[in-house]
Amino acid sequence: MPTRRQTLQASAAAMLTALFRPGAAQASVAAAPAAARLSPAQPNPRTLAEALSAFSKIVGDQWVFSSAEDVALYRDPYSLLWGEPDEKVASAAVAPASTEEVLELVRIANQYRIPIYPISTGKNLGYGGAAPVLPGSVVLDLKRMNRVLEVNERNAYAVVEPGVSYFDLYHYMQERNLKLWIDCPGPGWGSIVGNALDHGLGYTLAQYRNHFDAHCGMEVVLPTGTLMRTGMGAMPKAQTWQQFKTGYGPWIDGLFSQSNFGVVTKMGFWLMPQPEAFGIGRVFVPRYRDLIPLVDIMNRLESSHILQGCSSLSCPVTGTGFGDAPSAFGPTQQDPEIMAVINDPTGLAPERLEAIGLKKGIPFWSCEFKFYGPRKLIEAQWACAQEAFAAIPGARFEVGEILSMPLSSAQVEALPDTVFFGIPTLRTFSVGPLANYGGAAVVGHVFFSPVVPRTGEAAIAADAVLGGLARHYGLPITPIQFPNPAFERAFLFVIALPVTRDATVNRKIRAIFHELVSVAAEHGWGEYRTTPAFYDDIARTYSFNDHALLRFHETLKDAVDPNGILSAGRYGIWPRYLRRQGT
Amino acid sequence: MPTRRQTLQASAAAMLTALFRPGAAQASVAAAPAAARLSPAQPNPRTLAEALSAFSKIVGDQWVFSSAEDVALYRDPYSLLWGEPDEKVASAAVAPASTEEVLELVRIANQYRIPIYPISTGKNLGYGGAAPVLPGSVVLDLKRMNRVLEVNERNAYAVVEPGVSYFDLYHYMQERNLKLWIDCPGPGWGSIVGNALDHGLGYTLAQYRNHFDAHCGMEVVLPTGTLMRTGMGAMPKAQTWQQFKTGYGPWIDGLFSQSNFGVVTKMGFWLMPQPEAFGIGRVFVPRYRDLIPLVDIMNRLESSHILQGCSSLSCPVTGTGFGDAPSAFGPTQQDPEIMAVINDPTGLAPERLEAIGLKKGIPFWSCEFKFYGPRKLIEAQWACAQEAFAAIPGARFEVGEILSMPLSSAQVEALPDTVFFGIPTLRTFSVGPLANYGGAAVVGHVFFSPVVPRTGEAAIAADAVLGGLARHYGLPITPIQFPNPAFERAFLFVIALPVTRDATVNRKIRAIFHELVSVAAEHGWGEYRTTPAFYDDIARTYSFNDHALLRFHETLKDAVDPNGILSAGRYGIWPRYLRRQGT
Repeated sequence: MPTRRQTLQASAAAMLTALFRPGAAQASVAAAPAAARLSPAQPNPRTLAEALSAFSKIVGDQWVFSSAEDVALYRDPYSLLWGEPDEKVASAAVAPASTEEVLELVRIANQYRIPIYPISTGKNLGYGGAAPVLPGSVVLDLKRMNRVLEVNERNAYAVVEPGVSYFDLYHYMQERNLKLWIDCPGPGWGSIVGNALDHGLGYTLAQYRNHFDAHCGMEVVLPTGTLMRTGMGAMPKAQTWQQFKTGYGPWIDGLFSQSNFGVVTKMGFWLMPQPEAFGIGRVFVPRYRDLIPLVDIMNRLESSHILQGCSSLSCPVTGTGFGDAPSAFGPTQQDPEIMAVINDPTGLAPERLEAIGLKKGIPFWSCEFKFYGPRKLIEAQWACAQEAFAAIPGARFEVGEILSMPLSSAQVEALPDTVFFGIPTLRTFSVGPLANYGGAAVVGHVFFSPVVPRTGEAAIAADAVLGGLARHYGLPITPIQFPNPAFERAFLFVIALPVTRDATVNRKIRAIFHELVSVAAEHGWGEYRTTPAFYDDIARTYSFNDHALLRFHETLKDAVDPNGILSAGRYGIWPRYLRRQGT
Repeated sequence: MPTRRQTLQASAAAMLTALFRPGAAQASVAAAPAAARLSPAQPNPRTLAEALSAFSKIVGDQWVFSSAEDVALYRDPYSLLWGEPDEKVASAAVAPASTEEVLELVRIANQYRIPIYPISTGKNLGYGGAAPVLPGSVVLDLKRMNRVLEVNERNAYAVVEPGVSYFDLYHYMQERNLKLWIDCPGPGWGSIVGNALDHGLGYTLAQYRNHFDAHCGMEVVLPTGTLMRTGMGAMPKAQTWQQFKTGYGPWIDGLFSQSNFGVVTKMGFWLMPQPEAFGIGRVFVPRYRDLIPLVDIMNRLESSHILQGCSSLSCPVTGTGFGDAPSAFGPTQQDPEIMAVINDPTGLAPERLEAIGLKKGIPFWSCEFKFYGPRKLIEAQWACAQEAFAAIPGARFEVGEILSMPLSSAQVEALPDTVFFGIPTLRTFSVGPLANYGGAAVVGHVFFSPVVPRTGEAAIAADAVLGGLARHYGLPITPIQFPNPAFERAFLFVIALPVTRDATVNRKIRAIFHELVSVAAEHGWGEYRTTPAFYDDIARTYSFNDHALLRFHETLKDAVDPNGILSAGRYGIWPRYLRRQGT
């Protein structure tokens, strides 16, 4: 179990400091103490002091953090409100070591009506970090609850506490030589539980890379301080808690994702058996509008479960996004003819790029597919895929070496990225838009992540509309933006917006984000996830029948959390006492 | 849209009559008029009359059914309480034609505090049929809402109303020559929406045969009379309602399954593209305890998504359950040596059967796998499976002809069962325990369906304990019962209990059911679904932390249905005014 120092240092703010800019962020954190920005909702200082004292009796003094320096580590280093009066800053933090302690803390929070904000490891950077939505909340830091409770190799599942990171589970399984893989998101330092509850995504087979979908069974501390188990976990002697999701009666697990209806203290996950081999195949098609049949065929192969690995689109003619080795942002072809089209001040004409590509043999689009399984299965899947895509005139194919698993250490070292092999990494922090924006240094990013129909037409439209806006504002986007096909049946059209430490620039970026949300909604493209600064705005775009869904969420919230103590405002759900009228 | 006569005749009671015993059941139905068994919860007759009159103003007089003859058609023909004072009988029924009418009816039900009980088509025989859980409820019959709203071939999904049966959708797609398959349960006359909401199962690829898992997006009339859409459907212009399940914020769809929190009026489903070909492979292993590695290897191949079709276990040495051509109940080998072991009054000794099997070359266990896809993929999958199962000494393999899709009409005619080909059928009614029990004619069955760990050891234990009990009571079970592997990660150990028209015999069968539930719970085996007579008993076995899960369900119930008008008692969830203390 981590020490007090490790717990605090594991905060995203502190770890980013160590990763990128030794000294700088730490100084910046210390320069903006939490106490300086008490919000109107901030708990009464005397009540807070009493609650913290009661918390100390449960967890011990050393696990209640209330000094400005300690609390500052719970700030979101990627906050677009950094240093502004509205920045979402905690009043304190408390780090329990067990479910029993969580139960006690939740009961105390009810007794003192202190808003609490559970985080698993607080590392969902770009989507909120460790900072509470309601300023002044006490962060319930679950990082110390980092036990791997069970890994079952025969039935291929794990049960973990919320403080278990992808690295933790990976090392646990490596040490025991278990022949199972985990499915990691980009950065591996985050919580398995937290990522799943936030509907995070990974990189292996379809079922496993949808992290919420891959879960089976939860233990939850309800906001009233009651312990509950879902699915088969509600049957005292059941051994199938991690084998059968829905149990008996209504399946309520989804309630605890992207919400504030409970504190998840245990969660089961289905794991993938270590495959015999891994392979990559790439399809290249020559013309701009080939994207339409390309996506249709990809959809058919994926819905038929012939292709099940993570696919990725790229645009060779602009030199961007080659599957697992993306060529960073901006074109790399350096072909003057191509660059002239890309940089044409009257706008990029895809037809002109297509003509150059056809002349020079550079395909317009590419799609990369990953394969997992016995060698002969990979070969058959790839052969089936080639046959299907050959329907597109001019389609070309490229296949990588099929690698036998497990990889040697030397092979792992040589990989451009390990996430496709179930190996957690922090490599994602070595790429991305770490540059300047509006004259200010970029320190991070927030993601704008709308769901777009899985058709070539929709991808083209999203590039024109949203990509067009992003380019208009000089955001670090590719010349032609392509969607992310990680979810099985829909595209994500992710745009990373820069975050700076300059409030004026950040304000401008917030305005761009708002405009993107609003324009996307006009086209029926809704975000699947966001950073707290935009929770309410995005919730408002899901407005069918006078916001019936949000009103239903609020009905549930009032029922399960009558004192409104838990994660007020998360995903736009506010307790009654903080609810604005006419949302 | 069906006529009044068709609506009533489509009731399970009437259709079973037509299928099996012309005249008889109809007479039996008429002999037990609903009015004869008013329960204490029955609504006040004057209030009911007023409500029915208000219902008539919405749907028209002809769509309110209150005569004894009409209402009797909503009885559950497979009720173990048939003709007894506790039989769950409706007071009336009302059949709306649209979501707007459902909204109005729900508002009227609130106004008069009339309990209503929505059914889709009411055909989940063995799990409840059309009869309400709370006697005296008004059945809200959604059979007339039978529009296929959309089938999207490119993105492989359908949107249907609750009255759409598997046959309806199948015919719709056949008429339009759409290259998509549906995944059907045993009988194809049921509602696609209803089956999914009841967590029903089918027969094709894993994702599709879990019918709730295969859904994407819902429209729900809440018990307070508000219309809500879930997932991306909450964004007014979204075209991804059937492409992205979880939308934004808490994913609440699971709440509306096996519950009474809303009336689902539209539901989307992911469909499987028509595969190029279909194949069957069978693995045979010689020894009793080979079941343990057999299941382990099957699990590994399925979790790796190498095997994805429906698998089925059988026991050749006792002559039972050959995959898609089950040899009905009871042994068919007719080998006197084997029969002597099976019928040994001191009990069946598997070792003796094993010895005979080894001597005569009859395998103890068999597992059958279905394959869907291009021919070369099927061949590769089957080759991988053979390699894996070859680890079991003495394993033998058998492969069927690979059939190209679509099948000709003649090929379909010749099939032993069509459900593996996405073609709905009522063939399931031609097999099963239609015989005698306890001296009474068997008219149907109810299913005891516990979830058992997916290991050979657990299957053997379940056969010893539950199979042993079933055999002790002379239930129609095989000499050695094998589990159903239709769910991806857990076994179901289904036992069909007979239903008669003799109250004394039915009472005995209920006692056996209760005993099975209780003994199963002692072993940690909990039911995933049941018939209303056992809703409460089974809910009580999910008792972790003083029934925390059920209490949470009740909290939600009170919040979303404050007047308790909707499906009182469904899956053990009662509104506050009917709740027993100390559950």
